[in-house]
Amino acid sequence: MTHVVGSAMHEASAALLEADLELAQHVIESDARVDVLASGVEEKTFDIISSKHPEGPELRALLGAMRMASSLERMGDLAQHVAKQARMRHPRPAVPSELRDVFMQMGNLAEEIVRRTGEVIATRDLSLGGDIARHDAEMDRLHRQLFSTVLAPTWELGVEAAIDVTLLSRYYERYADHAVSITRRVVTIVTGEAYVGVTLD
Amino acid sequence: MTHVVGSAMHEASAALLEADLELAQHVIESDARVDVLASGVEEKTFDIISSKHPEGPELRALLGAMRMASSLERMGDLAQHVAKQARMRHPRPAVPSELRDVFMQMGNLAEEIVRRTGEVIATRDLSLGGDIARHDAEMDRLHRQLFSTVLAPTWELGVEAAIDVTLLSRYYERYADHAVSITRRVVTIVTGEAYVGVTLD
Repeated sequence: MTHVVGSAMHEASAALLEADLELAQHVIESDARVDVLASGVEEKTFDIISSKHPEGPELRALLGAMRMASSLERMGDLAQHVAKQARMRHPRPAVPSELRDVFMQMGNLAEEIVRRTGEVIATRDLSLGGDIARHDAEMDRLHRQLFSTVLAPTWELGVEAAIDVTLLSRYYERYADHAVSITRRVVTIVTGEAYVGVTLD
Repeated sequence: MTHVVGSAMHEASAALLEADLELAQHVIESDARVDVLASGVEEKTFDIISSKHPEGPELRALLGAMRMASSLERMGDLAQHVAKQARMRHPRPAVPSELRDVFMQMGNLAEEIVRRTGEVIATRDLSLGGDIARHDAEMDRLHRQLFSTVLAPTWELGVEAAIDVTLLSRYYERYADHAVSITRRVVTIVTGEAYVGVTLD
């Protein structure tokens, strides 16, 4: 699932920056695959619990996996939102040339963070959490920077462009938040702590 | 949890419309309560599965409940986002007077939809799903209407106000989406169908 939603965001970012309608369409249509994968995790969790009656850390890991699948499903939705924005403005680019660079950075961060998230899930190596937190902090910084740009008196591209880039930026930022939340899940599975959700924003 | 996140959204809407800083602050601080409730549901699910080894519909209901708690947690976050927006613009109102009425309608719909959601959870009466879907459709309509308003050439309140109301409107719309998703969960529990998430937007 991290590969699928990582590649969805990779393609969505390319579709956004290149105003590539076909690619945007592909991302939008492919999202159903993520939904099916998430649903499969849930069914499998149900089957394993029914048949094997796991307890303790094994049960905690199963329940955690189900929740992670749900976060990954949301990450897929967010990639789809980016692609829809690209499609909506096509043939115009949804991102003004002045902000291409910021969105390229956000796209790269999103890919990096989801790759690391996949590693954390696969290896349970909690030391990767530091990287993920740093990427997320950098994403938040770009998100805030973008707000400052569109709210500055120098912004001359109008309301529609301002809303477009604000929403897009929020999609990337939320995508990173979900990666952080997955990492926190892995922590609870490895350490046995209870998970208390916190507002990510 | 539906009562708590319903009352959070009720207060957040009032704080927003009245530019009431104290009330906004109260909503923001109270969100931790929702997080603790959600975490409690998860722990309780873990304990019940560990000790009673439920199978079939009972297990499906438990796993579904855990996922519903997670949606309710997100609804609490969204109420908090509304309150934060009110706090950020205080002492100015975050919603221009021209749009007060739309946000009042959105607030009322949010309250109505979460009340119905609580009823569905308590009674498993799937016929309430029709009301919830109607409220959600109405929320979507208001959300689209708001986009048209801020993008119209007649919009004279500038970029910041446009972004503020767009984000706020998105919070209400997402809040309703989560209520729909919870309702769909109840349907899967009652009917035994598998849940396949779909993108709500």
